[in-house]
Parts: sequence; C-alpha cells; structure tokens
Amino acid sequence: MQLPAAFRDYRAVFDRELQAAVSKNGLPLYDMARYHLGWTDESGQPAAGGSGKALRPSLCLFACEALGGTVDRAMPAAVAIELVHSFSLVHDDIQDRDTERRHRPTVWYLWGQRQGIATGVTLWSLAHRALYRATDCGATGAQLLRADRALTEAARDMIEGQAMDIEFEGRIDVGLDGYLAMISRKTGALIGCALELGAILGAAPEPVVQSFRRGGQSLGLAFQIRDDMLGVWGETEALGKPVGADIIRKKNSLPVAFTLKQATGAARDQLLAVYNKAEIEPEDVETVLEVMDRFHARSYSRGLAEETCATALSELSRLELSTEARRSLDDLVNFLLARDR
Amino acid sequence: MQLPAAFRDYRAVFDRELQAAVSKNGLPLYDMARYHLGWTDESGQPAAGGSGKALRPSLCLFACEALGGTVDRAMPAAVAIELVHSFSLVHDDIQDRDTERRHRPTVWYLWGQRQGIATGVTLWSLAHRALYRATDCGATGAQLLRADRALTEAARDMIEGQAMDIEFEGRIDVGLDGYLAMISRKTGALIGCALELGAILGAAPEPVVQSFRRGGQSLGLAFQIRDDMLGVWGETEALGKPVGADIIRKKNSLPVAFTLKQATGAARDQLLAVYNKAEIEPEDVETVLEVMDRFHARSYSRGLAEETCATALSELSRLELSTEARRSLDDLVNFLLARDR
Repeated sequence: MQLPAAFRDYRAVFDRELQAAVSKNGLPLYDMARYHLGWTDESGQPAAGGSGKALRPSLCLFACEALGGTVDRAMPAAVAIELVHSFSLVHDDIQDRDTERRHRPTVWYLWGQRQGIATGVTLWSLAHRALYRATDCGATGAQLLRADRALTEAARDMIEGQAMDIEFEGRIDVGLDGYLAMISRKTGALIGCALELGAILGAAPEPVVQSFRRGGQSLGLAFQIRDDMLGVWGETEALGKPVGADIIRKKNSLPVAFTLKQATGAARDQLLAVYNKAEIEPEDVETVLEVMDRFHARSYSRGLAEETCATALSELSRLELSTEARRSLDDLVNFLLARDR
Repeated sequence: MQLPAAFRDYRAVFDRELQAAVSKNGLPLYDMARYHLGWTDESGQPAAGGSGKALRPSLCLFACEALGGTVDRAMPAAVAIELVHSFSLVHDDIQDRDTERRHRPTVWYLWGQRQGIATGVTLWSLAHRALYRATDCGATGAQLLRADRALTEAARDMIEGQAMDIEFEGRIDVGLDGYLAMISRKTGALIGCALELGAILGAAPEPVVQSFRRGGQSLGLAFQIRDDMLGVWGETEALGKPVGADIIRKKNSLPVAFTLKQATGAARDQLLAVYNKAEIEPEDVETVLEVMDRFHARSYSRGLAEETCATALSELSRLELSTEARRSLDDLVNFLLARDR
C-alpha cells in the first residue's frame, strides 16, 4: 500500500535533494548514513529498496503547495524533516536493539553501537544544514529562524517521547493518558512539524501555521496508533519485523495499554502473569493476543485512530483549502487508517 | 589548577543561566541531564562538585567582551556551547564505555545506554533553544542565524572527529596528519566556535569572526594535546580516570601516534607486539611507556602544544585587543599548557 498519488508525486525531486544533502565526503560516517537511507548496500555499492515512505516530507511540501507556495520553497524543510526522522530511526534501532529495518540489517548491527550513535547525530546536524538552504530558495531570514525553532522543538519532543516509551516498557500503570502523552511527542510532534514548516515557508500567518501543526499532530497520533496495531496484528512480510515483537519487548503500545486498563479478574491475572515474567516467550504472546481479543483491543484501536483522523481533518478544514487539497487529505487519512506497513 | 581569573569571573552568572536552560520539567530525561551537569546526585538531590571547567563558555564571553560587547549579549551562545559540549560528553562516555567522569558514575552507567543516548541529544536540542534567546539579549536575527549555523557546523565537525577517533582505535597507520585532522574536528571545532560565537554576538565583521574562530581552533588543538598527555602521564587523582586508560583502549592519542610513527627496529616490534594483542594488559602499559620515553614522546607533545598555542596567539594578535585582553589570553595559554586535569 502506497501513499496517495498527490503525495507520491513529490518523490523524484525530493529524493534528489535528499541525496544532495547527504553526499559522500570520504568519512565512513556518511557511508553509514547513506546506507541507512537505503541508497547503498553495506559495502557502499549503489542499491535500491531500502528507503522509507517519505510521509513527513510529502506532508511538508503538500502544506506549502496547498497555501499557494511552490514545492521548491519548502524543499529544504522537507529534506530537514526527513533527516530528523532518519536520525531518530538510527537511534531507535540502537535503543530497541532492533537488528533489522525494512528487511535490511540496521546500522548499529553492522557497524556497532558507537558508530550508530554518531551516524544518528550526524543526520540531525545535516537536517539543520539542509534547512539553512531555505533562504537560497526564497524564504526570508525570519521564516528560516521560525522554521529552525520549530524543527528544534519538534526534535526535542520526539526525543522526549522516545525516552518515555523506553521508560514505559514493562510498566503496567501507564494508562491511556500516559500513552497519548508519549505518542504525541514521539510521533505527533514531527508529523505536526512537517505541516508546520510547509505552512511557515508557504508564508502563512501564524494562526494558519498553528492549525497545520495541530492537524499534523493529530495525523501523527493516527499514524502511530496504526503502527501499534501493525506491531501486534501486522504481517511480518510487509513490515520487515517480527509480529508480536512489541508484545515481547513489553512496549506500552495502544493495544497493550488499553487491555491492561480494561482487563479485570482472571484476564487481568493472566496478563500480569505474563508481564511479570522477566522475559516474555512466544507462547505468552498467544495469551496476550487472546486477552486483547476478549477486550476488543483491535476495534478500540481502530476507533481511536479514526477519531484522531477526524480531529485532524476538522482542524484543517478551518483553513480555506482547494477542493483538490481537501481530496488529497481525505486520501491521506484513508491511507493512514488502512496501511499494512 | 584553575582557569585564569579573567575567565573564572564569568562563572557565577553563567552557572545561573545554564541552570535556567536545563530546568526540571517532570521528565526523568531532564533529571539525568541535570545529574550530568553536576547539580544533583543520582537520586535527584542537590549536589555540588560535578561540574566542569566551563572553558568553552568562558572563551565565548571573553571574545564578546574583548570586542566591547557585554557579557549578557553573548550569554545565550555561551550556554549553547556548553550544552553542545555536555551532549558530546554524555555520548562519548557511552561510546568509550567510561563508567566514571569527574569522580562520579556516568549517565549511561547509572541509567543505561538507551537513556544515555536520549539524554545526550536532549542536551543538544536545549543548546539550540538556549541560543535562540540571543535575539532577546540584543542580537539581530541575522547574527542569531549566523551563530546557529556556526554552532551546527561545529557540532557536526565534533561528531565527525569523535567517529574518526573511534575508527582510529587499534590502527597503527594513523600518523600525525590523521591525528591532527581528527582532533581539529573533535576538539578544535567547538573551542573555535566558542570564540566565533562570541565575536558574532560582539558584532565583529566577518574577517574578525574568522580570526577568532581560527585562533580558538588552535587553542583547541593545544587543549586536546594536553589532554592526551594527561591521558598517558597524568595523575589518577586529579583526572578522575585511571592513568594509562587511553593506552589500554588503543586510542590514537598524540603520544601513541607519534611513537608509532618514530619507533623503528626492536622498539617498533615491541610496540606492535602490544598493539596486536586483542587486549592490552596493565603490564603492557609499562612497555609502551618505556618506548615512548625512548623516543621523547613527552617533550615532542609538549613542543607541539606550545607551537599550536603560539599559532593561536599570533592569529589573535592580528586583532586590536586591549592590553588586558591580551594578558588574559597569555594567562589562558599558560593554563592550557600546564593544567593537570
């Protein structure tokens, strides 16, 4: 399942700009960054198929265009957003000890944690450098500063969210509020920032910028909820990571946080027995899935994802967008709710 | 041994501003950051004695004042520089698996690598946020943008240098050029940036900014060379880390890179026998120290440190600084060459 056409259209130009922002410079650090971005194999030879969906940069470019701006103008921000996202993935893989991403070995797994840490922060520094190009693409200095601040804040929120996610692992008292506070930082902030930066560079007044940010924030929640659903009920093949992995590592993903909150009596005891084990075994996953079924965790999750998408669309419908832009957003929401990877 | 008086004078105001930039916000991430900065013990209770020298921020404030600017004006940059430095220390401790810094357990050692990684990048994001305050302190938007770019570039150089340092470990072919390329990034870039930011916020024209940057870069080399000397010949008590540690982990510090380049015949065989071992034992350290002595690695290192200090002073003497400022720089150079921790 792919991004809707309106968002895929940006891809070719975006890919070129992203490649220019992470060019080879002789240091192994940049080869590792290029490997992570899916352009080379582990020996540095050109390769394909390891890239992500580029959802965030597409949203950034979309926002700028929806406001009557050009794609070119928001391109430095789109590149910056994707680089911040990539930075977070490289570090997340280390923190979660994931050995595979998108069916390929992760950076730390190939080159060690120490170089993985350095590759992540390099990508972050390149994000800021990419953004600074905005003034060469028609932005004012004030817009660039505004965008740089927004990107820094979003990155910090994202880091906080990831730290909360780690801290929540194995806890049974997180609850839905805790879960939402965590994902609104971990995922909502950067997706919100993608639309925010597009709006800033599209020269929108501040209230419009804020509407885009809040709308994107809600889309981000929906995105993460769907991610959590895939982490429990998705197919290994499409995802490139084992199903049930999030259960095994005691992640407080939505189905888990919800079921822990809802389950009472014997069901709760069953769950706690699993979660109190030092290590969750594959057969325990079955138990957890059964209890989740009994408490309708799947339809609850689907419902919450739909609700947050509706919040997003309602936030964005305050803006006077073209019919075409509205249709693209509807397509995007349908994609976010139904995607299988 | 302390920083010269002119640089220590900034300390009280600086400490207050730094504390304001890393305030508690309820998330454990900030408690870990505050612990690293030496303000609390591991249970979050106020503590003292774990702070660093604040060399970099002092240099930043000094540059601004030497140009006739106020300390207030450069304070956001001074805080930002220290936070970038702190970020690098938190990650370096993870990468080097150091369990102690300044006689206290390191962040990752207390809270794990995963939270250590997050604490490091949080400090970096706080650095940019601190810098953004510059426009509230009298800087123009253009000065702030210029400073933000410089800080991002310096951070990236620093990250590259640390990655090179890691990659160099255990290699015997690094040579002096490789060593200098590595430390000019790892240490030179941020110390250069400290003076650069002070000059930018002191409203200096670009050639003066560049002189400060280059002068600082050279001071940074001298600082690192002295650090390398202390890593081989320093006292455990003053340093808070075991002497010979850099030899044991096969760091290509200056004495090692120099001796590997100089030693021939039997001495070279002796060195290679040690460096080809999977693990260097404490008794091997004695062998390495002996070979270093034979090739005068210590006086060579001292000479190179003096040379880079002279380069720094000569670069800075192109500027029309007050007699007082010149005297402070001389004091600083004497400190850098003689410090014992």
